[in-house]
Amino acid sequence: MKIFRAQFSGFCFGVKRAIKMAEEARLANSSKDIFTLGELIHNPQIVAELKASGIQSADRATDLKDSIVIIRSHGITKGEKETLLQSGNILIDATCPYVNRTHELIASMVAENYPVFIFGDKDHPEVIGMLSYGDDQSRVVTGHTDFSGKQFSKLSLISQTTQNPEAFTALASRLLPLCKELRVFNTICLATTERQQASQALAGVADLMIVIGGKNSSNTRQLHSICKTLTHCLHIETEAELNPASLQGVQTIGLTAGASTPDEMIIKVFNRIKEINRESDFVKSIDQIPLFKEESC
Amino acid sequence: MKIFRAQFSGFCFGVKRAIKMAEEARLANSSKDIFTLGELIHNPQIVAELKASGIQSADRATDLKDSIVIIRSHGITKGEKETLLQSGNILIDATCPYVNRTHELIASMVAENYPVFIFGDKDHPEVIGMLSYGDDQSRVVTGHTDFSGKQFSKLSLISQTTQNPEAFTALASRLLPLCKELRVFNTICLATTERQQASQALAGVADLMIVIGGKNSSNTRQLHSICKTLTHCLHIETEAELNPASLQGVQTIGLTAGASTPDEMIIKVFNRIKEINRESDFVKSIDQIPLFKEESC
Repeated sequence: MKIFRAQFSGFCFGVKRAIKMAEEARLANSSKDIFTLGELIHNPQIVAELKASGIQSADRATDLKDSIVIIRSHGITKGEKETLLQSGNILIDATCPYVNRTHELIASMVAENYPVFIFGDKDHPEVIGMLSYGDDQSRVVTGHTDFSGKQFSKLSLISQTTQNPEAFTALASRLLPLCKELRVFNTICLATTERQQASQALAGVADLMIVIGGKNSSNTRQLHSICKTLTHCLHIETEAELNPASLQGVQTIGLTAGASTPDEMIIKVFNRIKEINRESDFVKSIDQIPLFKEESC
Repeated sequence: MKIFRAQFSGFCFGVKRAIKMAEEARLANSSKDIFTLGELIHNPQIVAELKASGIQSADRATDLKDSIVIIRSHGITKGEKETLLQSGNILIDATCPYVNRTHELIASMVAENYPVFIFGDKDHPEVIGMLSYGDDQSRVVTGHTDFSGKQFSKLSLISQTTQNPEAFTALASRLLPLCKELRVFNTICLATTERQQASQALAGVADLMIVIGGKNSSNTRQLHSICKTLTHCLHIETEAELNPASLQGVQTIGLTAGASTPDEMIIKVFNRIKEINRESDFVKSIDQIPLFKEESC
């Protein structure tokens, strides 16, 4: 059996930055409670570790008063930010700079009176945050949104940072014939694009792709969605979900991970695959571990 | 034999307006020479008629001094306009308002420091005029332009008014993945779109399409280019080019005409087809003239 890791996978810049900021806040305020509004990143295991270190996740901005509040990597709404500030909280803004940029762009489009279409998952906190910088002409759209009969004199289109670039281009192409002016902002972050391209390349040669990351992580779900069109594909959060039967007969495994998945978890999954192989009769040895970066195992 | 005329064909708003302005200028200045810089519209027969009425076409702005000059429907360059004004000419601006709009948009994009890509034929006077409102970041592109390795932080894309909307969308779709922000202005005029769609529909049912209009007319050439992919297709300027042999065996003829083709010419072609039919043995009668609008013949 061969195990490959996608060339780009796991923690992105924004997630690393948010965790570092949380750790620094923890060190600098050892005696105080620290909160995040919602989960700092979309990874239940990391969130559990933060909680153990005294960084708790609160559900509502109105629950927080005179506290240290870390704004999560995928951002919060304009209203939540105002509420937090009005209640005497000290904010540590760990919003990914690429997400912050979408807020600025949406606000500038509103100022210039462009209707704003946001390509994304309307229930995702990042998109809810983005939409809060819009106005009553702003809306969330997907590849399935029906625009029949619609015409726009001017329109702006912007993307959740973790969407698929091809799907974004396809949506823009559908809107182009309906618009006198279409202003397209490609705000999909490079980390997302790189992870998707590397996973796609690996899925093309692997019998089985294992996508590791939070079930609530948009970019991890995107990776799963891309890979499953090319090969058999599993989406797991931890190594405990790996079922030995699912590896039966598999010659080549590709590993990839969302931007909120720590390398430690990728290594745990890798080790569990090796363990299953040893336990089983169906594969006798691990031949090769090409492209498995960073880990020496 | 059945003869159909495309639902939309012939003179567009901008061309009708330019001819009317020329006629009015002729009436109001009966004793003076009147010039156009280049051809008023792209139709040699109309240009010959204008010349006969004393409206001549000059090649260079520097040739004109203290004259009445009609600016042609597809516009002139910014520099030519300045030259004409500096030489004491009185300008009658018959530039199509849709072309004027492209000049304004390009100037505003330059003011906002967006590189401007103009989708069009670099040798067409309309495009040469458009480009003169750009700066050193502006360039003319086509569907064949190679963008490999290119990345743009911001870019604007604008079209010659007579281009094909599908080809424009396809070009924009190619540029989208290369741009952080792409600002697409669909400046293809409705008359162009309507004429192309109607011709395409008719070409789908006709054995032979006859496209009538100037060989130097961009929008007429576009119609020919669209129709010839669907059926046998001729591009003629006048009825004299109709070869009886080319109608042999044809059961259904579709007629369409560019935006600079007068109805008189469409009627002449129609009458010549009837004449050829009478002269020939291969078709005995004209069965039907459906969709042949406006003419009663």
